[in-house]
Amino acid sequence: MNSLSEARVVTDPDVIDSYARDRTFLEPGKPLGVVLAASRDDVVTTMKWATEHRVPVVPRGGGTGLAGASVGTDGSVILSLARMTAIRELSPADEIAVVEPGVITADLDRAAREHGLMYAPDPSSYEISTIGGNLATNAGGLRCVKYGVTRDSTLGLEVVLADGRILNTGRRTMKGVTGYDLTGLFVGSEGTLGVITSATVRLRRAPAAPPATFAAEFGSLRDAGAAVSAIMAAGCQPSLMELLDRATLEAIDDWRNIGLEATTQAMLIGQSDAPDGQASVERMERICTDKGASFVAVSSSPEEAEELVGLRRLAYGAKERQGACLVEDVCVPRSVLPEMITAIEAAAARHGVRIATVAHAGDGNLHPVFIFEHGTLEPPAEVWAAADEVFTRALEFGGTLTGEHGVGLLKRRWLALESGPVASEVQHGIKAVFDPLGLLNPGKAI
Amino acid sequence: MNSLSEARVVTDPDVIDSYARDRTFLEPGKPLGVVLAASRDDVVTTMKWATEHRVPVVPRGGGTGLAGASVGTDGSVILSLARMTAIRELSPADEIAVVEPGVITADLDRAAREHGLMYAPDPSSYEISTIGGNLATNAGGLRCVKYGVTRDSTLGLEVVLADGRILNTGRRTMKGVTGYDLTGLFVGSEGTLGVITSATVRLRRAPAAPPATFAAEFGSLRDAGAAVSAIMAAGCQPSLMELLDRATLEAIDDWRNIGLEATTQAMLIGQSDAPDGQASVERMERICTDKGASFVAVSSSPEEAEELVGLRRLAYGAKERQGACLVEDVCVPRSVLPEMITAIEAAAARHGVRIATVAHAGDGNLHPVFIFEHGTLEPPAEVWAAADEVFTRALEFGGTLTGEHGVGLLKRRWLALESGPVASEVQHGIKAVFDPLGLLNPGKAI
Repeated sequence: MNSLSEARVVTDPDVIDSYARDRTFLEPGKPLGVVLAASRDDVVTTMKWATEHRVPVVPRGGGTGLAGASVGTDGSVILSLARMTAIRELSPADEIAVVEPGVITADLDRAAREHGLMYAPDPSSYEISTIGGNLATNAGGLRCVKYGVTRDSTLGLEVVLADGRILNTGRRTMKGVTGYDLTGLFVGSEGTLGVITSATVRLRRAPAAPPATFAAEFGSLRDAGAAVSAIMAAGCQPSLMELLDRATLEAIDDWRNIGLEATTQAMLIGQSDAPDGQASVERMERICTDKGASFVAVSSSPEEAEELVGLRRLAYGAKERQGACLVEDVCVPRSVLPEMITAIEAAAARHGVRIATVAHAGDGNLHPVFIFEHGTLEPPAEVWAAADEVFTRALEFGGTLTGEHGVGLLKRRWLALESGPVASEVQHGIKAVFDPLGLLNPGKAI
Repeated sequence: MNSLSEARVVTDPDVIDSYARDRTFLEPGKPLGVVLAASRDDVVTTMKWATEHRVPVVPRGGGTGLAGASVGTDGSVILSLARMTAIRELSPADEIAVVEPGVITADLDRAAREHGLMYAPDPSSYEISTIGGNLATNAGGLRCVKYGVTRDSTLGLEVVLADGRILNTGRRTMKGVTGYDLTGLFVGSEGTLGVITSATVRLRRAPAAPPATFAAEFGSLRDAGAAVSAIMAAGCQPSLMELLDRATLEAIDDWRNIGLEATTQAMLIGQSDAPDGQASVERMERICTDKGASFVAVSSSPEEAEELVGLRRLAYGAKERQGACLVEDVCVPRSVLPEMITAIEAAAARHGVRIATVAHAGDGNLHPVFIFEHGTLEPPAEVWAAADEVFTRALEFGGTLTGEHGVGLLKRRWLALESGPVASEVQHGIKAVFDPLGLLNPGKAI
């Protein structure tokens, strides 16, 4: 690849294969090679070469995707942005940072905290996922119930287009309406419109004190869902509101022995980082009790709180120990959270499938994880049937197929149900404006 | 126009002229007529007719625009959405509303308050502007320093495309990443991509108590700017932070006699609606004193607070009494607010032009209002020269031409300075996807 040094291009088949996978069960195709881009110029060179030779390009960050957007396809070049790790600027006065796409999400957050600021979006994978991957999927996370998703923290982008031209979008200011919102268009586009080489992101003031935390155990998942709806309707404004079902708790208990009670069917973990956080959490505690919680504790120490939230972050790893996982990501209007939980339980029972659910419950965003036998290449038919039922019910409830993971390869089969033909035509029209040869991550997202 | 009843179509030239103007000084062209749409079907009929006959369409809400986006052009049909005023749904449980574009912004806010909720975006015109117009310009407002702009409160849209097809974008849920962000693309597109006939907007919990308020007077505008930067950097999180310069205060004083002191060069009005609002406002008060405020008062009554904020809302009307106004809208990174204020004063002095500035200061969003003689059709050359200097400096400071008013007709002459050729080409490409015949609001925005 003309001006790229050899050190940047990998053609060893085993290394290629490792760069062709994400965290799904999907088997990759046979890409031609991997470019380990270290600069914007490397990206430009790669895209110009790809355009000249009509070679598809699969951009990639940390490879922690859960929908297959970064899975390598036959005959493609994988473009890894993981080595572009510079925080080019961090301005405490303007509360912004300018970062390269390979920066690990939690590293940016830590850099911001040194100045009393934080980077709010925190997908569960934030210690291993990159800002570029977060941008590509418009990642959510635990804190987004209060602070919004990745798009809400993105002010501007530098993007290399399919033909190697450089596009600057957005701004450094808090507000701006010059031209169409190209920044928002790239966020969540899963590498199909261009390759992000730099992002100007918004930082926020870090809360002055550690958050106040509660954990509540319920004898029924429905009661826990009802408690969430009541907490949100009461205006408690939690900064975290996570729901774990029995199957998830068992997976964590098997791994770390958390002393799970036999009668506990669900756990709710909530936090408030507001100045009146303690009072707010006590209100949430009372609502949980009213809704039938068998046990509620308000945590007295930051360490205890950290441990509780840490448990939640272990949920996905705990399930992966038990089998191969199809991690789903439906989002419904908050008021129907209990009904959606019931629908997931019904789908599991009807199809004889194991489903363990965690939820960013304050957002109505559920992650039912379909667990099947390790070593199976594809989920068995009953898993797809149960997933199909879950998606159909979510859409019936006014929900969406994906709250934060993206469409990737996994959700394309249901896409038409949600989007309809006019939106689909428009989206393909937009794709053609940016990538007329269809070289950027073909077959993904739309 | 085939199936539209005659009552919906206006061809009286005087009435057409009144529908062809906005709040700028711009003289409209000669439109063919006005359609007073009362339903989505009326909009579909209009767009199909316009496509068949190749007639340009200028969509319009309350006509309160400040950049000329809804000014009627020669040979066009004006499509008024002002009669589509239904709040189709308001769900307290899901904290959303589904509204037609003609709903007055403040009416939606009032409807939400009946359920303990609020609609956050509040442009100064919110008693006379419509949700549709707010969406078209991605309107900001006084509260957006805390709650974000119109785009941040928009979840989904129903849009009639140029050819009359109906496109549904977005969702009813708090999160969702299915497909490209078409919702964000339409918000701020100034009627050039489609006609919004319904919007699903996010409501928020209204604060439990009235906000705490302070007002501070400064002997220099620069000191006031420095106080704003210090307040934001200290993490006070105001829900309103408005700056008024001497010329603005004089205009208000002339109208309403507010007892303006001879030495006051600037006033800062700030609020906090947080649970610890009183403490937060007292911190802001101390910072103002540190930065040299000549007088600071923390308001003791909601009525007094309402009056202070009411003063700010009068600023534009007060200036209109003094002359014709070119209302500008630059936004800069917060840290350079004092420098930008100085640059505006320098431009006024250099070109001998009267500029009165108010600012959503917490966002770095300044509205320098260039006042010139009533009855002048176009601003005189020195006004354009001063405006040119203000825009150039704002861009040099890393700012943008327009924080919340949009580009319309007025800012097109500076657009290339900010956007550059690649962004411009991409934006015209997107326009062609939605409106291949170029019928929707041609010559505006991009």
